Amino acid sequence: MEYYSSHISNLIEELGRLPGIGPKTAQRLAFHIVNLPKEQVGTLADTIRDARENIRYCKVCGTLTDAETCPICADPARDHRQIMVVENSRDLAAYEKTQKYEGVYHVLQGAISPMLGIGPDDIRLKELMQRLQGDVDEVIIATNSSLEGETTAMYISRLIKPTGIRVTRIASGVPVGGDLEYIDEVTLLRALEGRTEL
Amino acid sequence: MEYYSSHISNLIEELGRLPGIGPKTAQRLAFHIVNLPKEQVGTLADTIRDARENIRYCKVCGTLTDAETCPICADPARDHRQIMVVENSRDLAAYEKTQKYEGVYHVLQGAISPMLGIGPDDIRLKELMQRLQGDVDEVIIATNSSLEGETTAMYISRLIKPTGIRVTRIASGVPVGGDLEYIDEVTLLRALEGRTEL
Repeated sequence: MEYYSSHISNLIEELGRLPGIGPKTAQRLAFHIVNLPKEQVGTLADTIRDARENIRYCKVCGTLTDAETCPICADPARDHRQIMVVENSRDLAAYEKTQKYEGVYHVLQGAISPMLGIGPDDIRLKELMQRLQGDVDEVIIATNSSLEGETTAMYISRLIKPTGIRVTRIASGVPVGGDLEYIDEVTLLRALEGRTEL
Repeated sequence: MEYYSSHISNLIEELGRLPGIGPKTAQRLAFHIVNLPKEQVGTLADTIRDARENIRYCKVCGTLTDAETCPICADPARDHRQIMVVENSRDLAAYEKTQKYEGVYHVLQGAISPMLGIGPDDIRLKELMQRLQGDVDEVIIATNSSLEGETTAMYISRLIKPTGIRVTRIASGVPVGGDLEYIDEVTLLRALEGRTEL
């Protein structure tokens, strides 16, 4: 890439290391960036650095946050006796966006995956079990509906069952607005198994 | 986006301002960035700032470069009597990658577009005409094959014709490996008009 300035080549290379950014996209972004106002580029660079340097994990639930305890865990209005177990902070955010869930969360920071060599000790299960020694009524397992997510859900439910705490799993089925024609058979069977009375 | 750290929300917002980066991609990138090693994030932030702060335009051809004169214009081995006119530095790079073109370039930094209110005075045409007062044998117009590119090509050729300098236009036709079945009619007609003897 000798055709550009070395600064641009470096930028293209750095951007190209991000997930989902191929060489063409990196090039397009780099040219866009060098044509932006200086202040805006400064803000972008600072924001990137700040986010990385100031990020920490909530000491209760393990989500990414600014403070020692995240706003959800620190909120007395939330139901701390109901814990939803999710794989990561993005999944937590997805449920928060519904604005209907009033319990708290536990972020595993991963899922059990024998393929990737991620075992039960590599995700935040020990921390979950410690939390369950407090007053907890229900653990809602909201790991993804993937092989890893299901394996993790199964593992957690077996771990918690002996404690007598109620363990539930979010429903699996046809997404709202989904057209049956385009939905895979496994999902269709799940939707059938999970049918409810009308 | 109160569910995340404000640092992450800011990062998602800043990334989302880049072209082609929607909210979901911005979120994915932001989470990727905060999980990278600190040094790598520092490098990314520095590279972004450096690229913007150190960028300048070649005083001869107008391409983005580090120095006062770009490596191509400064190279005595290139044929400085043959000038290829391109819309931007990316187009220059595209031709440089072929490693076959031995002339120099002139970067217009745009194309004439009445729709966007970009007229002949808004692109680097004056600079081109100044260069033509030196020793030039041929001007190859390699603007894009779009409405704007064609308009610009037509305008430039009319501007140069009176000087007696040879003006050519890169060929328009079926791309190599292209399947006729999937190529638009305008391109097919262009390919027919531009047919050559075998």
